[in-house]
Amino acid sequence: MFTLNPRLAADTILLGTLALSQVLLMNDARFPWLILVPARAGLREIHDLDEAGRATLIEEVAAASRALADLYGPDKMNVGAIGNIVDQLHVHVVARRAGDDAWPGPVWGAGTPVAYAPKVLAETVAQLRGALAGLDQAK
Amino acid sequence: MFTLNPRLAADTILLGTLALSQVLLMNDARFPWLILVPARAGLREIHDLDEAGRATLIEEVAAASRALADLYGPDKMNVGAIGNIVDQLHVHVVARRAGDDAWPGPVWGAGTPVAYAPKVLAETVAQLRGALAGLDQAK
Repeated sequence: MFTLNPRLAADTILLGTLALSQVLLMNDARFPWLILVPARAGLREIHDLDEAGRATLIEEVAAASRALADLYGPDKMNVGAIGNIVDQLHVHVVARRAGDDAWPGPVWGAGTPVAYAPKVLAETVAQLRGALAGLDQAK
Repeated sequence: MFTLNPRLAADTILLGTLALSQVLLMNDARFPWLILVPARAGLREIHDLDEAGRATLIEEVAAASRALADLYGPDKMNVGAIGNIVDQLHVHVVARRAGDDAWPGPVWGAGTPVAYAPKVLAETVAQLRGALAGLDQAK
């Protein structure tokens, strides 16, 4: 049975579930930052998924990237499956801007997260849920 | 026409070409580190690829991951498409060990690359070419 890693759950807000993955918003107002977690038990690596699962995962990564790109107009998307600390397979999708708090370095391990203010969080969650629902229907 | 970004070319050794991607070895003996570059002109983001291209890319990422996992027995694979410095779409596939020079942080931006000694480089290139060829045939 799949259960979300407690560390991921503590650091994020659940936006919804796509065909394969739970979509989480990282609670760090410095960067528009989604995390996709394939909702299957026991996965650590991309190559632990079967081929159909991998194809779905990269489509969900692309959809999440497009949603963030449309909403935030970033200079670059950053996508990463790292997992050195939390080894449940999860893929970061982060909208980056030249000059943001970690630029041009990666966001992982950079500085200290800044939690969203409650009102901004509610607006961000609503906006992202709308964008992800729209992409789902467009397919 | 596709041409490899000069910075990527300078930092790596070309191992070969899969259906979609050129496979490069990062010239950094601290980490077993491959870079896949889809050999199509003008790509910056994963979502710039079409769906078939994305499916091929993630299969090539999985094949590269398995090759490194088989050869090096890492504790974790790290996969990332960052591109804040070099914006030609490229995917890092890195075999990580607990206690390596950047652990548990990401390798990107961590310290200074250590070039392979010539003999080790020749052996590593031969080994990786063999592993990648084997995976190609196994499909």
